[in-house]
Amino acid sequence: MSDFVRIVEVAPRDGLQNEARQVATVDKIALVDRLSATGLRSIEATAFVSPKWVPQMADAAEVMAGIIRRPGVAYPVLVPNLQGYERARAAGAEEVAVFTAASEAFNRKNINASIDESIERFVPVLERARADGVRVRGYVSTVLGCPYQGQVPLADVVRVARRLYELGCYEISLGDTIGVGTPRKAREMLLAVAAAVPMPALAVHFHDTWGQALANVAACIEAGVRVADAAVAGTGGCPYARGASGNLATEDLVYMLHGMGLATGVDLEALAGTGRWLAALLGRPTGSKVGRALARA
Amino acid sequence: MSDFVRIVEVAPRDGLQNEARQVATVDKIALVDRLSATGLRSIEATAFVSPKWVPQMADAAEVMAGIIRRPGVAYPVLVPNLQGYERARAAGAEEVAVFTAASEAFNRKNINASIDESIERFVPVLERARADGVRVRGYVSTVLGCPYQGQVPLADVVRVARRLYELGCYEISLGDTIGVGTPRKAREMLLAVAAAVPMPALAVHFHDTWGQALANVAACIEAGVRVADAAVAGTGGCPYARGASGNLATEDLVYMLHGMGLATGVDLEALAGTGRWLAALLGRPTGSKVGRALARA
Repeated sequence: MSDFVRIVEVAPRDGLQNEARQVATVDKIALVDRLSATGLRSIEATAFVSPKWVPQMADAAEVMAGIIRRPGVAYPVLVPNLQGYERARAAGAEEVAVFTAASEAFNRKNINASIDESIERFVPVLERARADGVRVRGYVSTVLGCPYQGQVPLADVVRVARRLYELGCYEISLGDTIGVGTPRKAREMLLAVAAAVPMPALAVHFHDTWGQALANVAACIEAGVRVADAAVAGTGGCPYARGASGNLATEDLVYMLHGMGLATGVDLEALAGTGRWLAALLGRPTGSKVGRALARA
Repeated sequence: MSDFVRIVEVAPRDGLQNEARQVATVDKIALVDRLSATGLRSIEATAFVSPKWVPQMADAAEVMAGIIRRPGVAYPVLVPNLQGYERARAAGAEEVAVFTAASEAFNRKNINASIDESIERFVPVLERARADGVRVRGYVSTVLGCPYQGQVPLADVVRVARRLYELGCYEISLGDTIGVGTPRKAREMLLAVAAAVPMPALAVHFHDTWGQALANVAACIEAGVRVADAAVAGTGGCPYARGASGNLATEDLVYMLHGMGLATGVDLEALAGTGRWLAALLGRPTGSKVGRALARA
């Protein structure tokens, strides 16, 4: 099993889109560039979604135009449909990400479609991407629980992940959107999916709403996954405010992986500095304990 | 392997002694009583140490006199020497805890003794306790790292744990005092000690300074340990302040264990309510993500 873990840094998109404070375009560009300077290999840079839904992402094209494209670093962007895909391509995106939920209720509530209908909506995007030679990452959300239906059957998670993989996604990121999972359930879910999709094509994406994210990643790493999503400073909703739901802090993940003897290629000091800089921009303390500990050291 | 995990709640002692704000005796008594009402079986109630060293614990005898002793609940108290032991016994303590470090440098710096000398200082306490029928818990600190010497040889951790066990401690709590450990190292340390001391006589005690505590407990649970120390609200130094170093929040631990299909006997809602009440007393947000999530729910 490989000793290298690839981290997909999602602060510029999944992190910022859930933050209340609007971040200036120039700062978003600086964030992506600071992140790529730390040695991260994959940075989700922005989303080409409707500004009416996600005002924080209205400047997606400007962000893509402004960032430095470092060789060897992927800059995927989220696209909800073919229109978003075309905007992303016009802005120079070479990798995109699509998303759906493993929960019937979540899909019904959010896009008034069944799980299978929601996936079929991505077929034109995936066909176009294949023709364009564009890599596509697939997100499956609510893999360990749903705010509307509670339990999510493992069979649904496996079916959605397999379908996205069959449609051409090179990697499937399994997301505990509401952060309710615990280590044994996380591992069980990962192994169920890995029976249908090769483990090297899987990633884990845990939110830390209930404080379980790092323990869940550790369990999944021991079970064989080698790609994990995280957001510097634990961005994605202020962890100290009501209604908040942050991502796993990348700094805490990198610290753990290095301590486990695994390589990430990431300079932890530089990453933690970027996290503190971002938290200051957002007007709150960093959500990373490693970030705080290094600031004291 | 048992499906029951006993939690040793250490907020009234290890938590409060590292908090800046002085807590009133009546509130300490209320804290212990609220904790015992949640179903916790072991609550470290206070410490009989010099008030010059630890002003927060100056009212140890008053706390012991004021708490309700629930049947089936143990209320260990920390004692540094025979004088502390005698004060504890006069206050009605039926279980005590002694402590030493696995790090030569830590012992030299703090008590000007070698590891072995520091242990021998407890021999009179353990002899007296045996004669009195008093149970003794042993803490070994710095098991995964030391602020003075850095690495701590596993052989030293094993030697200290075995010696405390041979001297009559019924349980040895292995503490990552500075919170630097990661899951594989935590498991490796636990298993090394378990080769010398029976696993049922071991407990783990992780601080969350680097955000690793819950992941470390999870790894140790999977390796077979069934006792874990934690502090409600993550007390033990404000997690948002410089120089802080909180304990693992008991709420987050209980949530994880229940999610893993393990029993604790603890009412999580009642525990989280107690954590928020304590955080309010201390004038800061709770350090438990589960505590915050339940407050929003």
